[in-house]
Parts: sequence; structure tokens; C-alpha cells
Amino acid sequence: MTDASSVHAVILAGGKGTRFWPKSRAHRPKQLLPIVGDRTMVQETVERLAPLVSPDRVWVVTGADHAEQLREQLPGVPAAQVVVEPLGRNTAPAIGLAAELIARVDPQATMIVLPADHHIRYPDRFRDVLSRAIDLAASGDWLVTIGIEPNAPETGYGYVERGEEIDAGRYRVRRFTEKPDRTRAEEFVRSGGYLWNAGIFVWRVRAIRDALRRLMPETAARLGEAVAARGDRARFAAAYQAIEDRSIDYGILEKADNVAVVAGDFGWDDIGSWSALLRLGPADAGGNVVRGRVLALSSRGNLVASEKRLIALVGVEGLVVIDTEDAVLVCSADRVQDVKQVIDELQRRGWKEHL
Amino acid sequence: MTDASSVHAVILAGGKGTRFWPKSRAHRPKQLLPIVGDRTMVQETVERLAPLVSPDRVWVVTGADHAEQLREQLPGVPAAQVVVEPLGRNTAPAIGLAAELIARVDPQATMIVLPADHHIRYPDRFRDVLSRAIDLAASGDWLVTIGIEPNAPETGYGYVERGEEIDAGRYRVRRFTEKPDRTRAEEFVRSGGYLWNAGIFVWRVRAIRDALRRLMPETAARLGEAVAARGDRARFAAAYQAIEDRSIDYGILEKADNVAVVAGDFGWDDIGSWSALLRLGPADAGGNVVRGRVLALSSRGNLVASEKRLIALVGVEGLVVIDTEDAVLVCSADRVQDVKQVIDELQRRGWKEHL
Repeated sequence: MTDASSVHAVILAGGKGTRFWPKSRAHRPKQLLPIVGDRTMVQETVERLAPLVSPDRVWVVTGADHAEQLREQLPGVPAAQVVVEPLGRNTAPAIGLAAELIARVDPQATMIVLPADHHIRYPDRFRDVLSRAIDLAASGDWLVTIGIEPNAPETGYGYVERGEEIDAGRYRVRRFTEKPDRTRAEEFVRSGGYLWNAGIFVWRVRAIRDALRRLMPETAARLGEAVAARGDRARFAAAYQAIEDRSIDYGILEKADNVAVVAGDFGWDDIGSWSALLRLGPADAGGNVVRGRVLALSSRGNLVASEKRLIALVGVEGLVVIDTEDAVLVCSADRVQDVKQVIDELQRRGWKEHL
Repeated sequence: MTDASSVHAVILAGGKGTRFWPKSRAHRPKQLLPIVGDRTMVQETVERLAPLVSPDRVWVVTGADHAEQLREQLPGVPAAQVVVEPLGRNTAPAIGLAAELIARVDPQATMIVLPADHHIRYPDRFRDVLSRAIDLAASGDWLVTIGIEPNAPETGYGYVERGEEIDAGRYRVRRFTEKPDRTRAEEFVRSGGYLWNAGIFVWRVRAIRDALRRLMPETAARLGEAVAARGDRARFAAAYQAIEDRSIDYGILEKADNVAVVAGDFGWDDIGSWSALLRLGPADAGGNVVRGRVLALSSRGNLVASEKRLIALVGVEGLVVIDTEDAVLVCSADRVQDVKQVIDELQRRGWKEHL
């Protein structure tokens, strides 16, 4: 069913990644950093796709600040396919822009949309799930989302409720749900009918363009203008700026009636904060996850990352210690969400060199 | 009674200060560092004495590794009065050596002996106590020790038991006591008869030389040989090496019958570990003591010192965080004594550049 040559991938790489300070900075967000492995997150994203989608059919949507670094990090991706948004307008315009550009080279293409900064422990299983989603998408007009089998009542993710089964492991979507509270999240996991919405989508370019025209006609029209004006930077920017800021979930998926979900379990982690690295390990005998030159004496359950310096821990527990050239973070592992507050405080004090 | 021109001060500056890693290093121990104030501890020691003993009558006993730095840090102290021991032999030989050298320039001198690395909050009161001790010492053959009024049952200090009062605040010493256990320390403080032994002594040069000849005749003889051979580095070293390793407390003060104590209360702290700086403050509203560029969010009771980098704390309590050019320490404030173990572990691993 699938014609492999017609599959393109669109990587959304606009994230700011403030929760990974002090490693992530305004000029170098999480997706451009080697947060989990030796390669940067966007490099790992491209490599993970490669057996299914070769880099010359990968598109990256990003802001002007990061385009140059992305082109350097991804030499296999054609420079013109690193698409610069004049400003961030959330996922619907970014995806719509990529769909317009892909339609010009291959109107029959199927496109995968995925974030630049997620970790996937089992890339083989991931590609199997994608292949099943591609088959489904290529067979018709389905807007397919990948749903992750939840293993905990996470309140930080949106959930997708499965409806009628289309065929094994592929379902109509009954409903998208915003981030639930703890009680609802527990119900969701218990019921077995809900999956995490990972922000990974597969559809034919034709199908998403149709959906945009139908459900976000204003956005579709502006996108058409923007793409037509793309040779003229100022006109392109002006058209893009006029587009409404809206997520694809809210703008399309929650409203469309042709949405399907393919369930998968491939060791997905959105690496939302430093504590993700404590989960992913590997940990030493004391439960410490360490990178670089670290001495941990009588210390347990810490994440410690050093770039150059020695970090010595004595008698501490449950800390995140991140050392960089100009800044050191020492944070309680259960307060990693608050690292964003450091950014706010740096801005307030005008200590811009650390942003 | 006191002839101010005849008072010399001997600063014992041989300490290694491993508990102040990563600031203190083999080549730069605690006394050569600005641990409490802006000046190094030995500089503060000399400045604190200056109204009583001018720097040209200060002697510093140290090892070869640190003599050059001491001469640079203490330009007012004549270079020849920075006396280099060929090797450390504990306090009795160091003091005996200084006494021999002072005797050659001023046989009638009174000498103050004091460590290079203690903090004194009230230098005026300290000098008053010293003056009272000098008066007593200069009046006869008393070996005078300064006793600190204890404000807690410390188990880390030796104690001096007061005997018969000589005159107001000056007593014969009944007994020196090694570091007590907790129960005994509590008894000592409750009884009111005990003072902390701070390692600060005052005596006439003649009195200490007599005591050495009487109670450590072997050491006295070797010291005589060493000083006589001082022009010949190898003979000096050989003679010094033959001297027994012994503290002045054990070798002289616990045995002599002419020991007196002058009680004092001048905000003394031996700055035995990083937690001393948490005690000394000043602390911010959250009880954090910070130096350098530090952001403390939702954090309490931490000591944080940065040389250059920004240190950001988020949601942590009771930590000591010390940042230096090549190493960062993150230590629980109640485990600061174990910082020495970092040194051992660095040695074991051969990471000598951090020692």
C-alpha cells in the first residue's frame, strides 16, 4: 500500500526548552543539545527516522535564531528544507506551512509530523508503529495520531480516547482530552481506553490541507498568501504574522471527524525536564545518574552532569546538579519544573549573559 | 609591666586545610585563602595583632611549599622571619624553633603563639585578653594559654580545667583534657570550670626554652643543633628530621606545673569546616549565606560560594555548594567533616589535578 518514496517527515523544532537551563539557552534550546545521548536531540530524531524516511525527505520548521545550527547539525537535510518561520505561531501554522511546501514537490505525499526533542528507547518499534500509521493514512483521508500506551497517570500530557477499532491496534479517535487532574488521569489509565497524545501525526498532505481549508479557512488562506510571497521576506513575514496562533490539536484534531489513532509502546519520553534523565538512567549502585567527571560519596538518587569540571557530592540525595561553562544548577529533583523560574529571575535581574 | 617592644608573635602556618576543598588545595591551604573575609586568614591574623605586635615582630613557621606565598601575602613581615621547617613535626618543634630564633635577637622577649587560620569576631576583646596574658607571662615564668569560654558542648576541642585563681580571670591550670565525648563535654560546660583550648599561648622565650630543656630535653638538644646548622640546609634538615613529632600540649603543657590560663570571650571560631561559614553569616532572609553570583529560589539554610560562575539553587536546603575554577562541591551541611574523604578518593583515583 505504502509507496516509501512518497513519505516526508516534518520535524517541529521551534521549542525554547527553558526547563533545561543551564544547558539549554536562548541560542541553544534542548533540541540542539545532546540531552540524552551523544548526539543532539534533533540529530537523534533524524537518525531514528532514516530507515523509513531518508534525510533528503526531512523538513524542519524552526525560527530564524536556530536555522543555521540546524543546517550544521543535519547535513543530510537539504538546506532549503530547514524552513524558517518569521515568528512562532504554534503547531497548526507550522504544519500547514510544511504541508504547502511539500505539496509543491509531491502533492501525493504522506507526511509524518513529529517533535524534535523526544526520546525513544526502542526505535525499531517506533518505526513499526509509524509504518502502520503510514499505511492507514495512505489508504484514505485519515488524520492519524500516534497514541502512547500510558504506564502512569501523568497529568502533564493530553490523552486520546480510543473509539471504534478500524483494524488491529488502529482506532477511530473518540475524543482528545486536555491535561487531566490526578483523579481523571488515574481513571484514564485504569479504563485502558486512553492513550497519551505524543504530538506525532501521520497524514497525506492532501488530507491535512483539506482539513485546514475546512476547519481553519482563514489560516489556510493566509498560509497560501505567505507561501506565494516566500521570495519576498517582508511580505512573507507580514502574511505569516497575520495567522492566528493555534495548535493543530485544538484547531483540527479536536474538531475533525476523520481522526484515527495507532497505539504504540516504544519507550517514549518527552524529556520534559531534568528528572527524565534520572528515569532513563543508567544509574550507578547508589541510584545516581552521572555524566562527566563526578565523585559521589554517600549520595543517592542524584542526576549530575559535568561538562569539564569535577563535581563532588558528599551526603546528598535527590538532587539535580548541572555544571556548564558559566552557570551551575543545584535543584531538588522534585522541583525541576521550577527551573523555568530561574529564567524569569535572570531576566528580572538583567543577568542576560546566562539566558 | 609589659614592655611592648619585647613582644613577638609566632604564627603557626603549617596546616593543610583539607576540609576546605575545593577552595583549599595542596598548594593553597586554608590559611592562605580568604575563607571568611576579603583578606586571607593569615593576613587577618597579622592585621588583628598589629595594634599589639607590629608585623616586623611577627614570625611565621611554615613548610617550604607555602613560604613564598606567605612572604607575598605578608609584605610587612621580614622575609627572614617566615621560617621554613624542613618537614612538619607538630607544634612543639615549630614553637621551639621560633623560640630559639627569637632568643637570638631578644632573649628577654615575650612570645605569643597562635594558629594562622582562626577567626575572631571581636579583635579588640582578643587583644585585651592577649594583653592580660602578656602581663602575666612577663611577670614571671608562667606558660599562659588562652581559654575560650565555651558556649556549646563541643566534642571537637580539647578543654582546659581552671584551678586556683591567680587574679581576676587568670587561673592556674588544673588539667588539660583531650577531646571529650558528648556526655563529658556537657558536664564540662555545665560545671563552668572548663575552657576551650584554642591553641593560643603566651610566654617568655626564656620560660618556654626552660620548659623544653626540662620536659623535652632531647627535642631541645636537637633544636639547638638544628639552629646552629641553619646556614647549611642539609644539616639543618637532618637535625630537624631527627626531632620527635609531638604537640606542645602533650609535650609541655600537660606536664608543666607553671601553666596558667586567661579566660576570654572574643567570638573565636577555629573555622574547622565549611559549616563554620553558615554559623558566621551574614545570612539572607532564607538563612542562606552566599558569596558571588547566586540565585536562591525556594531554598533555605545553604552556604553557597561562587568565584565566577552563576550558581542557581532551586528548592534545596542545608547544602554547602562551593564552586571553583576546576571543581564544584555539593555537600550536605551536616556532612562537611567528610569533605576530607573527597581528598582521599581523588588520591585513590589519581585525579591529582584537583588536589
